[in-house]
Amino acid sequence: MSRPLGFLTDYGPGTEHVGALHAVAATIAPGSDRVDLAHDVPPGDVRWGSILVERLVRLMPRQSVTTCVVDPGVGTGRRAVALELEWGKVVVGPDNGLLAPAVAMVGGATRAVSLTDTSHHLDAPGPLFDGRDVFAPVAARLCAGVPLEDLGEPVDPAGLMPGLMPGAREEPDGTIVAEVLWVDRFGNVQLNLGPDDLPPGTESVELRLGGSRYTARRVRAFSEVTPGGLGLAVDSYGMLAVVADRSSAAEELRAAAGDEVVVSVLGDVGDPAVTTAVQIGRAPAPASAGDPTSRGENF
Amino acid sequence: MSRPLGFLTDYGPGTEHVGALHAVAATIAPGSDRVDLAHDVPPGDVRWGSILVERLVRLMPRQSVTTCVVDPGVGTGRRAVALELEWGKVVVGPDNGLLAPAVAMVGGATRAVSLTDTSHHLDAPGPLFDGRDVFAPVAARLCAGVPLEDLGEPVDPAGLMPGLMPGAREEPDGTIVAEVLWVDRFGNVQLNLGPDDLPPGTESVELRLGGSRYTARRVRAFSEVTPGGLGLAVDSYGMLAVVADRSSAAEELRAAAGDEVVVSVLGDVGDPAVTTAVQIGRAPAPASAGDPTSRGENF
Amino acid sequence: MSRPLGFLTDYGPGTEHVGALHAVAATIAPGSDRVDLAHDVPPGDVRWGSILVERLVRLMPRQSVTTCVVDPGVGTGRRAVALELEWGKVVVGPDNGLLAPAVAMVGGATRAVSLTDTSHHLDAPGPLFDGRDVFAPVAARLCAGVPLEDLGEPVDPAGLMPGLMPGAREEPDGTIVAEVLWVDRFGNVQLNLGPDDLPPGTESVELRLGGSRYTARRVRAFSEVTPGGLGLAVDSYGMLAVVADRSSAAEELRAAAGDEVVVSVLGDVGDPAVTTAVQIGRAPAPASAGDPTSRGENF
Repeated sequence: MSRPLGFLTDYGPGTEHVGALHAVAATIAPGSDRVDLAHDVPPGDVRWGSILVERLVRLMPRQSVTTCVVDPGVGTGRRAVALELEWGKVVVGPDNGLLAPAVAMVGGATRAVSLTDTSHHLDAPGPLFDGRDVFAPVAARLCAGVPLEDLGEPVDPAGLMPGLMPGAREEPDGTIVAEVLWVDRFGNVQLNLGPDDLPPGTESVELRLGGSRYTARRVRAFSEVTPGGLGLAVDSYGMLAVVADRSSAAEELRAAAGDEVVVSVLGDVGDPAVTTAVQIGRAPAPASAGDPTSRGENF
Repeated sequence: MSRPLGFLTDYGPGTEHVGALHAVAATIAPGSDRVDLAHDVPPGDVRWGSILVERLVRLMPRQSVTTCVVDPGVGTGRRAVALELEWGKVVVGPDNGLLAPAVAMVGGATRAVSLTDTSHHLDAPGPLFDGRDVFAPVAARLCAGVPLEDLGEPVDPAGLMPGLMPGAREEPDGTIVAEVLWVDRFGNVQLNLGPDDLPPGTESVELRLGGSRYTARRVRAFSEVTPGGLGLAVDSYGMLAVVADRSSAAEELRAAAGDEVVVSVLGDVGDPAVTTAVQIGRAPAPASAGDPTSRGENF
Repeated sequence: MSRPLGFLTDYGPGTEHVGALHAVAATIAPGSDRVDLAHDVPPGDVRWGSILVERLVRLMPRQSVTTCVVDPGVGTGRRAVALELEWGKVVVGPDNGLLAPAVAMVGGATRAVSLTDTSHHLDAPGPLFDGRDVFAPVAARLCAGVPLEDLGEPVDPAGLMPGLMPGAREEPDGTIVAEVLWVDRFGNVQLNLGPDDLPPGTESVELRLGGSRYTARRVRAFSEVTPGGLGLAVDSYGMLAVVADRSSAAEELRAAAGDEVVVSVLGDVGDPAVTTAVQIGRAPAPASAGDPTSRGENF
């Protein structure tokens, strides 16, 4: 049985570009279980793509291969690579930082090759669609049984392009300067902060964003948010997110990915003048730093 | 061979949320035929989601399992359930009315369980993604052969949350007060009226909507609509829809889902002053009422 | 093993309409490898759909069947057909020009049938969803082993509706009047011109569009475009496209599909006054003309 094959791109849902990857893979690796992981990464947004690669490859089956394409540098000299991670999972894509957080999360790649053997690629009518012509064919050939080392020259995993995951930082006045990682379809505003970055027992925070101040209460569910108010919840990936109940927190905050958010812990709900100094206990590690603890196994 | 597995959500097409469901299912139930039924339900719109569940589960193969997630109450005490319907089809989702029309259409669930056995769930880093952590794992385990009764405590199907399907009503003056169920991508305006709700031989109706009046002629195809005019067609689900030819009826009417539409049968096309009293012959049954006639088999 | 089954529609990504096709096919042809080729064709845009059918069916496996639905004439008398092309590939869809470029590219259909045997269709509650009721069931039955000739009456492939592919033309003053075929998600503006339509060694062109003039330099990659400038690249299908680096060329040009673009070769970069006469060497053939050279095999 052939290996499962994931796809994660910025091509847009339901576009011909996604369809081309699937058609190529269905031809080269018939019977392989193809999984669309995400195709709505904003065009060229390598940072956001890299966060999704880390989140979703973790959920893929052992021995799976995932094609990752967010590749504004296509057609230039940037390397194309295939990296073997824990549990035999392989990620294939451009060496532009896109794959770095997935690699770092499992403590590094066990093997890496540069995709220099063009006999595994398709003949391309133009140089701008490596997804169809390089990444999908190579990934499908891995699924069909071609060994990793046949795809090209081995490279040192330590020389791969590092990622761009932003870390939050603590200011001398005790506030945290965080960043909006993403706004999802429901208007939830995901921050680059985990619940352990706030003092135990924190019930409410002040958020400063775009010149305005907001108060958000810790909640466990959307329905716990006061009507018209904002909540601070642990989201589905274990990070803190600003949320609202059946409305968009992002619209209320006028927040977008990449925005700076200054967070202060409130000593007393509703009294924004009294704040408590905090300690960032577990800022997200830079993606290139690596984490020796395995977090790759999920089932 | 494992059971086919459908997905119907408000997560948005091509999003990481949809990808997470697929990755989890590919891991738990390898080789299962996964079917994306719809992912463009407006965020949190349980009513519209419930209409789609009924329409699409009907088309799924016998013995299939469908994961349904439109779940604004995630993280609260609302129940998570799996319901067995006709032909061995199972639907899995929140007990918030989302599954009710599908259940009612086939005259009730034959078995129902509350998903209380957490050994079938994933360890969740946060409480807000039951699709990934509860519904998809449970559905995939059903596909892989786990019996329904192993998933948790049996519940009485009669105690499930009823649905919210709006019914049209007849007014004393003979007009029908209907509702826009949905506007599709082509701008067709689907009403909660069937063709049998109008008197036989009706050729034209007046529509009152948002303070304006419009005339629509009965047509069988988009191309039969007069240029610049409106048609009233039997749509692909057997309901009446206001349509235009290669343009958007919804834009012409400025109509959106949930809008009230007052329908009068015209005695003479083009003369909006002469109307005929009507009798609602077959208003859509309330979703919780049940329908003993099987309509679940399609092939 | 059943034949692979592709889908290409204007139904919109992640919609219930796409889901219905999949559910029907999963029921009729269990185990068939279903491939979503594209669902973001603008509603009713047969011309653009036909370009995608040609591009993507070429990438599908031998013996595959592809369901193509861009069908503004649904419910009228337009024919529904299944056409056998090279390598045993079959396309199924309306006979409205949608399938013509795919047929022309391989020099004509080897067999064609009109889908007149309704025993292979589903009972339809309304006449407006032939994708679910006619095209998907028929395609799935082909995948499950039903022979082409069982689907209906044979028709003469020469009598199929021709396509609408626009050709570029050369003006007496040596300029080329081209057309925008499409604007993709990245803002690349694809023209109906190939690189051989410009004189060898062309380094720069002037584009006239909507009353404005622009200069674009030949580039091989997005990153070679001067900041704020425009490039002319060979795109992923071997055609010329106007591109920018990490921004949208379409926004800069205010260009949309179908716009006329007058192209002049510049003798000297940056000097728009000096132009060189050109010869259109390889204008795209009209889709109905046919091309005896096989271009259907890709691997």
